[in-house]
Amino acid sequence: MKEKKGVSSSEITDSSAISKIKDKRKSQPNVQHLVDDILKGNITALSRAITLIESKNLKHSETAHTIIKACLPHANNSERIGITGVPGVGKSTFIEAFGKHLTQLGKKVAVLAVDPSSTITKGSILGDKTRMEDLVKDENAFIRPSASGNSLGGVARKTRETIILCEAAGFDTIIIETVGVGQSETTVHSMVDFFLLLKLAGAGDELQGIKRGIIEMADAIVINKADGDNIKRAKLAKVEFSRALHLYPEKASQWQPKVSLCSALHNEGIADVWKIICDYTKITQENGFFKRNRKEQNKFWLLQTIEDNLKSDFFNQPKVKKELQKQLQQIENGKTTPFAAAETLLNL
Amino acid sequence: MKEKKGVSSSEITDSSAISKIKDKRKSQPNVQHLVDDILKGNITALSRAITLIESKNLKHSETAHTIIKACLPHANNSERIGITGVPGVGKSTFIEAFGKHLTQLGKKVAVLAVDPSSTITKGSILGDKTRMEDLVKDENAFIRPSASGNSLGGVARKTRETIILCEAAGFDTIIIETVGVGQSETTVHSMVDFFLLLKLAGAGDELQGIKRGIIEMADAIVINKADGDNIKRAKLAKVEFSRALHLYPEKASQWQPKVSLCSALHNEGIADVWKIICDYTKITQENGFFKRNRKEQNKFWLLQTIEDNLKSDFFNQPKVKKELQKQLQQIENGKTTPFAAAETLLNL
Repeated sequence: MKEKKGVSSSEITDSSAISKIKDKRKSQPNVQHLVDDILKGNITALSRAITLIESKNLKHSETAHTIIKACLPHANNSERIGITGVPGVGKSTFIEAFGKHLTQLGKKVAVLAVDPSSTITKGSILGDKTRMEDLVKDENAFIRPSASGNSLGGVARKTRETIILCEAAGFDTIIIETVGVGQSETTVHSMVDFFLLLKLAGAGDELQGIKRGIIEMADAIVINKADGDNIKRAKLAKVEFSRALHLYPEKASQWQPKVSLCSALHNEGIADVWKIICDYTKITQENGFFKRNRKEQNKFWLLQTIEDNLKSDFFNQPKVKKELQKQLQQIENGKTTPFAAAETLLNL
Repeated sequence: MKEKKGVSSSEITDSSAISKIKDKRKSQPNVQHLVDDILKGNITALSRAITLIESKNLKHSETAHTIIKACLPHANNSERIGITGVPGVGKSTFIEAFGKHLTQLGKKVAVLAVDPSSTITKGSILGDKTRMEDLVKDENAFIRPSASGNSLGGVARKTRETIILCEAAGFDTIIIETVGVGQSETTVHSMVDFFLLLKLAGAGDELQGIKRGIIEMADAIVINKADGDNIKRAKLAKVEFSRALHLYPEKASQWQPKVSLCSALHNEGIADVWKIICDYTKITQENGFFKRNRKEQNKFWLLQTIEDNLKSDFFNQPKVKKELQKQLQQIENGKTTPFAAAETLLNL
């Protein structure tokens, strides 16, 4: 693909984005201000922009896109960390201790969540500010509960866009928490650099409700609540997990996943986890995986978004809806094959 | 959805299918003969029709569809059994012993395969006739190697259509073998009534390369090579698997998966496996799952086929191909988000 040097088509798009912002300013005088304020690290502006991303109002979405585009050149400079674990494993306590550790190191930490169940309950159980009392008061931390949406895809998109705004606002560590519901871990895995699985010692995988695939995705398994009577069992679990992890084939990152112990409640082992993540970042930035992986993730989201749209556009056509019912009935009666029925629908 | 009683749209479709067959006869006088011969159980006719399904020639595909449609009312009366297991577990030996057992019971057995790797190697490693010496000579058995294709979806479609022809030809037991490559087990699971996992005693899951998800899908785990020095280990493995299977939530079929031992080489334990499958069929036919599952599978294939087509239609457009490269470059340079890029592509 040829492009004139000096003036790339991307830059043209950028300047048109800016003129769009200027257009918007007439009716919505606060858009450029909002962007300026986000870039200054203003939390109120950041929150307002995220609310626009999460809005179902089409005008809000358009404004949100303009803001995201303007923030994009200032994003990407962060460490994105995914954290998963079943309820009861102590995710909030861990994130609170971990987040505090990072802000004490001078980091700016944003905590987001991907919780598809919030779609059903109309309220997120993750990223609950009341459960991170200290971190929420920390001026270098920003906690935002999970967006809600009609689908995991919708929640994921909003979270991905929120990451960009947080990075533009100067947050250099983005923590995305999720709970093992359906495909949510895979979704979070595809938007982070480092994927951390929190576990408890003792209970088997089945009892902890963790799918095997999750262990394969993990860059580190951190065994929480390794304190008091639990220490012996936790140490044993560490040996077992380390052994198990060695059986998996080498990752594309060339990173050998680590197992670590901690007690988030007693603030023990937290620095070790951060050390592991720093080691990972160093190795993967040197071998090129870090950058390559982010590009692959972007490509994945591009294709995924298109596929989701193609499907909903097709199946929401009234004639398709009607014929689909007919064809399903024909399949039910053994009068057609799924493949012939699909052809009929596609030829409508 | 209202429909005139007496004359359903399905019947109209059927008669037009028959007139299509008659039209074809002028140019291809053997289509109706082929259907007649298939319905009589003629193996040569069956093989020729399957070759038409597998052909890349568009005319052949059309003829194949006509034949499938004509066979459809005579299909569906079978037990469809999926068999998976890593290379070396003894799949061919097991299928040979199992198939012979069934033909001796008066069954007619068709052995098909889903092997996506055949796409790469241009030759199927599964359903290899030379590895089932006895079964291949059995006049009540029909063995067909895996179709090849550009994708697992293509291979799957051809196999699904082949099942219909085999059933119309009077085969009442369809065995579909696969090997754990990528998504092939999930694909086979979605086209069979009963899913059987062959294992060896001793080696752990990791060493056997079996993904946890496969165990969740299994209706029975059969530990093969339970002979000689292996018997003790095999019995131990049986206990372990039975315990592990109990930890999974109950299946929609209400069937509790079984673990069984066999030595395909010494023809031991084969009747037990068939007994398990018969029990499964009885239970699931009584509780309605058997029929319901087949309908769900058809629905799945209908949606899957449509999705595959929507994607390939979209991405094969020259303007999309061109713009996709541009947008990927923009993503690479951090000038756009995957979501904005997707929108650009969708609005072309």
